[in-house]
Amino acid sequence: MIERLLLVGVGLMGASAGLAVKQRGLAREVVGFSRRKQTLEEARRIGAIDSFETDLEAAAKGADFVLVSVPVDAVASRVRELAVCALADGAVITDVGSVKESICAQVETDEKAAARFVGGHPIAGTEKSGPAAAIETLYEGRHCILTPGGKNNPAATQKVRAFWEALGMQVEQMEPAHHDEVLAMISHLPHVVAYALVGAVAAYDREHPALKFTAGGFKDFTRIAASAPGLWRAIIEANRRASLDSIARFKAELEQMEAAIEAGDFAKLEELFTRAATVRRELEE
Amino acid sequence: MIERLLLVGVGLMGASAGLAVKQRGLAREVVGFSRRKQTLEEARRIGAIDSFETDLEAAAKGADFVLVSVPVDAVASRVRELAVCALADGAVITDVGSVKESICAQVETDEKAAARFVGGHPIAGTEKSGPAAAIETLYEGRHCILTPGGKNNPAATQKVRAFWEALGMQVEQMEPAHHDEVLAMISHLPHVVAYALVGAVAAYDREHPALKFTAGGFKDFTRIAASAPGLWRAIIEANRRASLDSIARFKAELEQMEAAIEAGDFAKLEELFTRAATVRRELEE
Repeated sequence: MIERLLLVGVGLMGASAGLAVKQRGLAREVVGFSRRKQTLEEARRIGAIDSFETDLEAAAKGADFVLVSVPVDAVASRVRELAVCALADGAVITDVGSVKESICAQVETDEKAAARFVGGHPIAGTEKSGPAAAIETLYEGRHCILTPGGKNNPAATQKVRAFWEALGMQVEQMEPAHHDEVLAMISHLPHVVAYALVGAVAAYDREHPALKFTAGGFKDFTRIAASAPGLWRAIIEANRRASLDSIARFKAELEQMEAAIEAGDFAKLEELFTRAATVRRELEE
Repeated sequence: MIERLLLVGVGLMGASAGLAVKQRGLAREVVGFSRRKQTLEEARRIGAIDSFETDLEAAAKGADFVLVSVPVDAVASRVRELAVCALADGAVITDVGSVKESICAQVETDEKAAARFVGGHPIAGTEKSGPAAAIETLYEGRHCILTPGGKNNPAATQKVRAFWEALGMQVEQMEPAHHDEVLAMISHLPHVVAYALVGAVAAYDREHPALKFTAGGFKDFTRIAASAPGLWRAIIEANRRASLDSIARFKAELEQMEAAIEAGDFAKLEELFTRAATVRRELEE
């Protein structure tokens, strides 16, 4: 049982965790902290937190579990600020950031922060943001990757693992750099591609109104292009090398298809389509 | 009221039309034709057709409205075969093909066929195929584009328009080449991109198992990559030039993003993401 759970950031990710924790009775008290009072009030209104503080020191006082759910470029500095607050003895700090190497490297430079912090990434979300978009079941049945550093004690990692497992997640451990490479392929790349596709169609649309004819397939395919641009800019910025690698891998595949069409080699094109369709259909099972 | 509606092809598109026509009582009789008896039996079992024929001449006899729902590379030859059958006086033939220029050009070379044929494309579908995937409401609220040729009389076009409107579609007319260019951008390109994305991830996955970590966003984004490879190969083959143009437009947009990441110009990247997100959010409204 967590005594005082502090949610630093109560947007989609933080508020969804708050709802799930409260529904399951996993913490005696859930406190919210955010830079914006309006967001905190919204989070309290929907029942994601019991109370809130707009001062980080006051919020952190006595907290034994801290979940940092802020944009990836703000995580490490928040963790370092938290490490000098009056947290409870043995308190752990974890995060939900979609990149891990840069965050973990920055935290590692600070002894106090490194001792308390276990990097985490619950792989869940929607294209929406803010507490109003919170979903109590957001994390259920999803994977969570933890990237504990060399300075963690196993008890801290175990606490974080138990937290996400209690929210219904399957938890695994990885090296931060490996996490970032995998996520570049399965999450960061798809976002870049979706933004690029909608951007290309939007540019074309100025010449020939075309978007009104889009059907369900296009909407499903491009839903993630509605995701918050600022959050995704920060993710790509923090995972620059792996993002570029993933774009290169994607372009190589696309260019194989393009070359087959150019050459009129439609048997080759169908072979490439079939390989993808087979993999995608297996995902459904 | 249609006297004898002939569905040539009773897969997802044809069988869905059959279900909707029968539910609305728009035809006295719905007859199915297909090369495969098993498919016809399945279509009859789900109530999409009243009866079937495996001989095209017998199926066509007395039909006053013919809907051709076969892969795009087979449409024109079926239409020409139908034109010499004993259809009812004033019978019209239309199709559901996702490309129009090549089909209409092939049909135009045949006087008899050209007189009866009005090219059509109801923009609806799912990633599934076959009569078992048919949905009675597939066409409701969607757009349908007709591409009547110079040899059509207005009454034929009007009959086809009335048919799709009765199924709940909004109907517009376009030149075949313009249709193909628009559809290349909003439908053919997204399919190629989705196949390429899943192909690239699958190739990466052989090195580092990554697919198991994919979440809802990836599944939505790549759903269309489960679409039948053979059908999509035929569509791209029949719309080769516009498909290549659409890929070039997409690559130009992606490469702008790639260049911004390379250069560390993340303000530019966010600007590109924002343009796409704004357009995508408007689509939801």
